[in-house]
Amino acid sequence: MTESATLFNRLALIGTGLIGSSIARAARAQGVAREIVATARSAATRRRVAELGLADQVVENNAAAVEGADLVIVCVPVGACGAVAAEIGPHLARGAIVSDVGSVKSAVVRDMAPHVPAGVHFVPAHPVAGTENSGPDAGFAALFVGRWCILTPPEGADPAAVERLAAFWRALGANVETMPAAHHDLVLAITSHLPHLIAYTIVGTADEFAEVTRSEVLKFSAGGFRDFTRIAASDPTMWRDVFLANKDAVLEMLGTFNEDLAQLARAIRRGDGDALFAHFARTRAIRRGIVEIGQDSPAPDFGRPHPDLPLAPLPRPYAASDDD
Amino acid sequence: MTESATLFNRLALIGTGLIGSSIARAARAQGVAREIVATARSAATRRRVAELGLADQVVENNAAAVEGADLVIVCVPVGACGAVAAEIGPHLARGAIVSDVGSVKSAVVRDMAPHVPAGVHFVPAHPVAGTENSGPDAGFAALFVGRWCILTPPEGADPAAVERLAAFWRALGANVETMPAAHHDLVLAITSHLPHLIAYTIVGTADEFAEVTRSEVLKFSAGGFRDFTRIAASDPTMWRDVFLANKDAVLEMLGTFNEDLAQLARAIRRGDGDALFAHFARTRAIRRGIVEIGQDSPAPDFGRPHPDLPLAPLPRPYAASDDD
Repeated sequence: MTESATLFNRLALIGTGLIGSSIARAARAQGVAREIVATARSAATRRRVAELGLADQVVENNAAAVEGADLVIVCVPVGACGAVAAEIGPHLARGAIVSDVGSVKSAVVRDMAPHVPAGVHFVPAHPVAGTENSGPDAGFAALFVGRWCILTPPEGADPAAVERLAAFWRALGANVETMPAAHHDLVLAITSHLPHLIAYTIVGTADEFAEVTRSEVLKFSAGGFRDFTRIAASDPTMWRDVFLANKDAVLEMLGTFNEDLAQLARAIRRGDGDALFAHFARTRAIRRGIVEIGQDSPAPDFGRPHPDLPLAPLPRPYAASDDD
Repeated sequence: MTESATLFNRLALIGTGLIGSSIARAARAQGVAREIVATARSAATRRRVAELGLADQVVENNAAAVEGADLVIVCVPVGACGAVAAEIGPHLARGAIVSDVGSVKSAVVRDMAPHVPAGVHFVPAHPVAGTENSGPDAGFAALFVGRWCILTPPEGADPAAVERLAAFWRALGANVETMPAAHHDLVLAITSHLPHLIAYTIVGTADEFAEVTRSEVLKFSAGGFRDFTRIAASDPTMWRDVFLANKDAVLEMLGTFNEDLAQLARAIRRGDGDALFAHFARTRAIRRGIVEIGQDSPAPDFGRPHPDLPLAPLPRPYAASDDD
């Protein structure tokens, strides 16, 4: 182990679901913390984390986990961050950095900051990465590679502490950007929270029709619907908290979405093909932009695997130029 | 080549985009047609189809393409199906089957049926498969494997002709189901058309905010938004036609969606976490159903590739139970 790789002496993870367990795996793989201490609310999760060997120590409670840690990352649903901060506050080591991974930042700052004692650096963070799965088994070390981690240090935060946390996330493969918490919450409302709200809605809607059975919805879902079900399979507790904590920004974005939807519906009703075509051509370009900057796979259909064709005799030698 | 594999003597494909070119590749790979004749509206596409060696003959016009064919599949946007049927009608061979691949069926039947002469079997079809890409280069032979192809034979259709077309699609790897055109249009309105409308809307919405730049939307799209951009990158002409042709069913489903969205928005506004949690837990179960019946990959995040972590020295030997 080279000394330069080790950024922290003792990393404490409060919560070891998809994100916490991925941080544990990645931090260990990269050697950025000399020691990893983890905890989780449920005994079953703590047992599983120990079985998986994700941490050097798995402890029973949050106060014990943070003792002597120079980096504490709270990886729990945003609605629980305040209570966790209250618990760990008195036990935080002087000079330590305390951070989180919440998808909402203003509410987390409001809830956590009052419990962070003087001499401890509070640097909120949000790694924009995840999958639809939950729990310590769902995590993997490469989750953050090529994704963005947004830091929202409060005014007056120690630049050295912010840089140390940024270096930690870069070591895990993430790109780091810094912005005010309020701006983060607007950006994520449109890039993440509203898409989840829409997906949760339409998947529920599909389940409600008398003329179309649930089994038909599932069978013919490859026409588009199944893409939404992945997002609508995300952790219910996490997302309940996100919507409650970022209510104003989400409802604001939803207002604009509703106006746009009404406009497209009007074009359909009136048979205005030109308006539809113009809109659809514009959105196609946005996809291209995301693929170009490496934020999605260029493979068609997200690179979903396609099984091979059943074997059958070929009618003639295959043309050399036909590589299918 | 075994005789049993060859279902048709001459397959004519009118249109060779994603779907038409995938049929050509799969039909050849499976040996289900002795000869494949293809055409396309644009000279550039016809040239490309010839270069790719996708057909035995590439001809200039639709009337020439169908001469002597015992299976004709019209693979053009649904809005163009009527005009194509009028062109090819007088040239169709007696006893031939004429079909299509449109995502809407009632409108296609209305537009095509009057042009199909007596003695020719009209069996509309819709393979529920595709990607966000278009054109002859986007096609591949395995596109239909494990997907559903829905046939909507009109009343009085010849059962033998329907079965021959079903056998063709099964040879391409698809599962075949038969239902009335009107029912198809309701089912697809919820499993495909409404999801596309919603995705097209939200991707447009994301592009409109003054406070959040387009570059921020693209950078932080991994929080959910990017999933929608894939669907909103689908072919604009095809989708304009779908919405115009299935207007009533789409607007009906949209009405229910809007009611459900208003209900979730109300729960957010009132801070009703229990209502949100109950909804989100229900939609998670629907995802499971789709994965269980093999209509989506069980891999997290659609199986999107994750690059490796940058190399770094490991702090200690990896625990054997930690396979990350």
